[in-house]
Amino acid sequence: MNDNLHKILHANSEYAKKYSGKAKLGMPPSRKIAILTCMDARLDPAKFAGLNEGDAHVIRNAGGRATNDAIRSLVISGSVLGTKEWLVIHHSDCGMESFTDQEISKSLEEKFDTSEGNYINWFSISDREKSIKEDIERIRRNPLVSDEVNISGYLFDVKTGMLIEIYGENI
Amino acid sequence: MNDNLHKILHANSEYAKKYSGKAKLGMPPSRKIAILTCMDARLDPAKFAGLNEGDAHVIRNAGGRATNDAIRSLVISGSVLGTKEWLVIHHSDCGMESFTDQEISKSLEEKFDTSEGNYINWFSISDREKSIKEDIERIRRNPLVSDEVNISGYLFDVKTGMLIEIYGENI
Repeated sequence: MNDNLHKILHANSEYAKKYSGKAKLGMPPSRKIAILTCMDARLDPAKFAGLNEGDAHVIRNAGGRATNDAIRSLVISGSVLGTKEWLVIHHSDCGMESFTDQEISKSLEEKFDTSEGNYINWFSISDREKSIKEDIERIRRNPLVSDEVNISGYLFDVKTGMLIEIYGENI
Repeated sequence: MNDNLHKILHANSEYAKKYSGKAKLGMPPSRKIAILTCMDARLDPAKFAGLNEGDAHVIRNAGGRATNDAIRSLVISGSVLGTKEWLVIHHSDCGMESFTDQEISKSLEEKFDTSEGNYINWFSISDREKSIKEDIERIRRNPLVSDEVNISGYLFDVKTGMLIEIYGENI
């Protein structure tokens, strides 16, 4: 086993030693929260939003974008498991701002000698506030999203750790 | 502002007070790790795998499945930001085991009066080990995934907090 995996499994065995109190947590998030945010390594949603195990669904992808898959997850979160408070959180210095869809497709074609990347919507970001707004609107207009869900949008500032409100509640 | 949002923003302001040491973290994950896991509220990947801010990409969706969107994120993680150690982590008592695709589509049709759900692949899970294996295989055969990436598969046991190895390294 390589060092990286060994270190993860060692940390996990330490975590498990203190886990017993969490064994009875139920499946539905107790605080009825779902967060959609970026996979970025600097973001730890549980820490930056004060969430404990059992509190909230956390959905993450490159950019924190409202892709079809993120919406699949949100619909299950809301309609099967009862969440009602959804936050879309993008962040400063996002990798998705560092390339256009055309650029990443070209770069991947050079690396892997396949045009496969040209057929993918990479969801690169050119305007932070606009991407949050578009994503909230896309979620809101999905026919499988209840009007009872509150959706708001924030930007996480990787220089300060602060959540900056972009679109308040009841968007 | 509602109580749920207020509580999140209060926790965030406390987090930001102690953030200064993290302001200089770079965009690429320092430990070159990417984890694909479920949105389930009981899972805190940073805690259960011993990850600090800056260490690893974390991609999460309903089930921790290798959807097209998860693969989009993994390709960016590997080819743009240099991760080489990918873990696919599903878990016991997953909500995705509690319905079939047909059942959730029917339930949503009754709730929202639209057949929209019939057009969605919900990625429900009928066999835990099989779902992990299928997901790893789907990632591995993607032409935009480098052979240099190590991919392994684990099951997180929500009763013990332990990661159980299903498919070791070099799958």
